[in-house]
Parts: sequence; C-alpha cells; structure tokens
Amino acid sequence: MKGEMGDSWHAFLNSASKDRPVVRAPVEHGDPSIDYAVAWAPEPGLLASLPNLKAIFSVGAGVDHLFRDPDLPNVPIVRVVAEDLTNRMSEYVVWRVLDHHRQGDRYRRQQTQRLWGEDLDQPVAADVTVGILGLGALGQDAARKLRALGFQVAGWSRSPKTMEGVQSFAGENGLDDFLKISDMIVCLLPLTDETRHILSLPLFEKLKKGGPFGAPVLINAGRGGQQVEEDIVTALDRRLLSAASLDVFNGEPLSPDSPLWLDERIFITPHAAATSVASAIVPGMLEQMDRHDAGEPLKNLVDRSRNY
Amino acid sequence: MKGEMGDSWHAFLNSASKDRPVVRAPVEHGDPSIDYAVAWAPEPGLLASLPNLKAIFSVGAGVDHLFRDPDLPNVPIVRVVAEDLTNRMSEYVVWRVLDHHRQGDRYRRQQTQRLWGEDLDQPVAADVTVGILGLGALGQDAARKLRALGFQVAGWSRSPKTMEGVQSFAGENGLDDFLKISDMIVCLLPLTDETRHILSLPLFEKLKKGGPFGAPVLINAGRGGQQVEEDIVTALDRRLLSAASLDVFNGEPLSPDSPLWLDERIFITPHAAATSVASAIVPGMLEQMDRHDAGEPLKNLVDRSRNY
Repeated sequence: MKGEMGDSWHAFLNSASKDRPVVRAPVEHGDPSIDYAVAWAPEPGLLASLPNLKAIFSVGAGVDHLFRDPDLPNVPIVRVVAEDLTNRMSEYVVWRVLDHHRQGDRYRRQQTQRLWGEDLDQPVAADVTVGILGLGALGQDAARKLRALGFQVAGWSRSPKTMEGVQSFAGENGLDDFLKISDMIVCLLPLTDETRHILSLPLFEKLKKGGPFGAPVLINAGRGGQQVEEDIVTALDRRLLSAASLDVFNGEPLSPDSPLWLDERIFITPHAAATSVASAIVPGMLEQMDRHDAGEPLKNLVDRSRNY
Repeated sequence: MKGEMGDSWHAFLNSASKDRPVVRAPVEHGDPSIDYAVAWAPEPGLLASLPNLKAIFSVGAGVDHLFRDPDLPNVPIVRVVAEDLTNRMSEYVVWRVLDHHRQGDRYRRQQTQRLWGEDLDQPVAADVTVGILGLGALGQDAARKLRALGFQVAGWSRSPKTMEGVQSFAGENGLDDFLKISDMIVCLLPLTDETRHILSLPLFEKLKKGGPFGAPVLINAGRGGQQVEEDIVTALDRRLLSAASLDVFNGEPLSPDSPLWLDERIFITPHAAATSVASAIVPGMLEQMDRHDAGEPLKNLVDRSRNY
C-alpha cells in the first residue's frame, strides 16, 4: 500500500491499518510489496510499474487527477463515497444557495454604508429552482437537503436518474430544458472529456432569462477544468449570470493576478467546499481492502469507459 | 375589521375578504361596525373603544407591539402561524448558522486580500450544537431543518417540550445547562417581561467556553428588546462570543450612529429575517374570522397570562 499524501493521511493509515504495512511515496518503481495504492495525483508511470497492484483508492470524490497518468494500470479504481465528505459538500452547496437567495451581498454592502433597507420582495425558497449538474452521491444528498428547506430542485445527469421531488433531466437532449428552468446552477459533475469547459458561454447563453435574482446564479464545486473563467466574467457583464460562487479554478491556488479575486459578483473559496479528512475516509478504505482480500467485490468503482 | 397596515395588506384584505367590509385606520373611536382588528402597533386606547370587537389579529408572529397599548381590550388575540413566515424564518436561521459555521467572514476577508487559505480543521455540522431559545412553531421548524443538515440541536423553552432528535431544556433551571452545550445561540423567543434583556452579560458569561468557533456565536431573530447591545459588544471583546448575526435592534431602523454597523464581528440585517407577506397570511386570518363567526374556536391564540 502506498500513496502520495499529506502527513495526516500517512499517520492515520499507519495507525488504523493494523498488520497491513504502509509505505509512503517516494517508493521504488517495481516494488513487489505494494498491493493497494492510496493516491491523488501519482507520479506518472509509477502505479503501472507495481507488479502486484490490486486496486487504486482515490483520496477524493473526483478521480480526474489519477487520469493525468497516461499509463494508469488497468486495475480497479475506487472513488471516495463517504458520509463525511458528502455532508461537507452539501453544507457548502446549501450555504452558497442560501447566501445568494437571501442576498448576503446586498446586506453586507448596506451594512458598510450604515444603510437600513429591507427587500420587501424577498422570494421564498419555493419560488426558486436550484438546478444541480450531476446527480451522483453528492448531487443527490444536496438535492435532498435543498428540498428539506423548501427549494424546488432540478437535476441533470449523463444517464437518466429518478429522485422523488426532483425534476430530472438527462443527456445532451435534456440539458437545454434543465437550463431553462434553473434559477441557480450548482455544478457537482466529475471532470471528464465531456464536462471539460462545460461552464462556458454556449451554456450560459442558454440559461433562463430573469427570474428571482435578475439572472441565474452559478455555483461551481466540481472542478476548475469545467469552467472557462473569462466566460464567467463575460456572462456576469452581459447579465446572463447575476452572481457566482466558485470553489474550484483553472489553476489552484488561484493566482494573485486573477481578476476573479476582486470581482464583487464572485465569491471565492480555496477548494474548501468538501475536504477529504483522513480519519473519516481511511476506515472505509481499509474495510474495502479487507473485503477485496477476502474475495468480495469492491464498491464505488470508477467506470473506466467513462473515467468517473 | 380594521388595521393600521401598509398598502399591500389593505389591498389584499380588500380583495380577499369578499362580503366582509374592510376599513382602514384612522377610524373613529367607538366605531360599532368593527368586529375584527388586524393590527401591529395600534393607537393606544383605540381597540378598547370598539364596542363590538370580537378578536385582534396580529400581522406578525410576535404580539409584543400590541401590548404597548396599556388598554388592550380583553378579547382573543390571534398570532400569525403561517407556513410562509415559518419557512422564511428557518431560511434566515439556517443561512446564518451555515455562514458562521462555514466561516463566510474568513473567506470574504481572504478574498479581498487575494489570499488562498483553506482551514483544514473545518468542523462538520455534526460537531456543532445549535441551541435554539424558543421552541414554538418557528423554533421547531428551524430545529428540524438544522437536524436535516446534520447539526446537533438543543432547544430551550419556558415549559418543557419534547422533539425528536433535539435535546430539550426548560425553565430557569434548564437554561444554564442549555447554554453550556451550545456552540451557537439562536434567539426566536417572544418578547415578554421575562425575556426582555435576556441576551446580556449575565447570560453571555454562562456560555460554553471555546468550542469549534473559539467561542459561541449569537444569532438574534427574536426582538431587539431581548438584547443589550453594549453587552454584545463587550462579550465579543471578552471573547465570550466569537461573532453575531443580528436582525433586530433596540431601536429600528438602527441609528446610523450605532457602533454595531461597522463592527466586523457582527452581521446586520434590517429586521428582514421573516417578512409577513399579506398574500400568504390574510387567507388564514379570513378563514379564522369565518370559523369564529360560525361558533368555532380560534386557533393560535395568545395566552394573556404570558403575553405570547
């Protein structure tokens, strides 16, 4: 077992793995003792060199970093599906949805001006449709929690999914209809060749016009590679979007030179929506390794034909 | 029927009341045609002068404004219990809880400094206990919605209440234990002689020390009369509190001279947490009048011995 990981991951793996030895990168190419890899963005070619590798465990919900290795070996890849990570992501989504919905920016601006001004036309959650791009474990949990707060929720996914109380759309044909009814767009998609640069002008131009916030709000907690950052600014300028919350960026950390930082229509978090916490994720990984060693099938496998 | 109310209330009452005539204040003292009053802060003595008044309907969830009239007649007083108002209040509560929990201020400050800095120790909702002062219709709905997001929820009320998944405390004896476990204090109490100035140093000194935010957070969406504003600033200075969201104030609108405006630890909204919207509330009032005229009992009555 090995991984390129921070101290907390290594320490937690070490302490929780009992009689399963843990080695930390860098390791020798061809090391025959490694049977499971825990990895985020491994050194290209390293995993392919390990003759006895049985499976790769991603330390995040996304696996796009793994696929940067062009020689990734053809062993099972396990995604993180952990309640802790899902809960964190839903917290972020509901937080951002509510801050836009309840006009946090307006009230913060008014406060600096010592200005007392209520919006008597504040919509209620039931007047607002939140559209979630991606209805996997994360999207479904966020949808449930937004529903509990009274929001209308729509979802879009590659293949059709049914969820009670959620208006579902699927595939390229369903995207336009989904965009036409959504007052906020929350991106929780995996990064694949199909979703790269999906959040760009062609999509923004198909968004609903008007609505409770003047124009739709964009919330991206997926991957920076899904957004064209100049297009987001252009869409804000053209009022195709009214505001955005971005947790991910084309380059991370976001360069101090980026014009996004001081754009008051954009709220920036440093890829902090849902941190993978070792203590919450490692036990499930070790359990899966034990199950696999006992001949049972692995769960939460990546579909290699789709890369997610 | 009469009321001192804005145009929207008058217009909506007029259009929805069918054959029930609506008159608008000012009206003559002693007007015998008025049988129901819809009021917020009526002219003192006016309601007592109406010989045929059968009941008073408050236009808000609170009725403390009515009791400013020392001669308020001894007729039934009906509070607003309306899904729309309850939902708006829960939106505000969850919004403020999440913004404090997810460190909105930290990220907004970092953004103005073009600073990329994640908090790797961000707690999850399950690590945080939100204590709600007041477990009436509003407090219970907020509690349910916070539970759905994974927060631990405690509640305090005058008389004992049981709510699944909520640790409940009651009466003066229960208050200290409630304060000791709460990482956030959300005030949704009615304003009465017992709750006036409850949010002051004696209470702040009994709060939990430390916790996930360094010190507890105060969120007041009850009434300004419940808080001593200098004490909130002192408690922030002494780190008995780490931050506050205030929707209500001793004087409203809050004076431009108030030091609260520019205190970065305090988030101010202009009594906007839950607006009473005529279209969402009037139908229920008219239904109650019809029921009462038909000899049926009124619902959501104020207990005159407690003034709420």
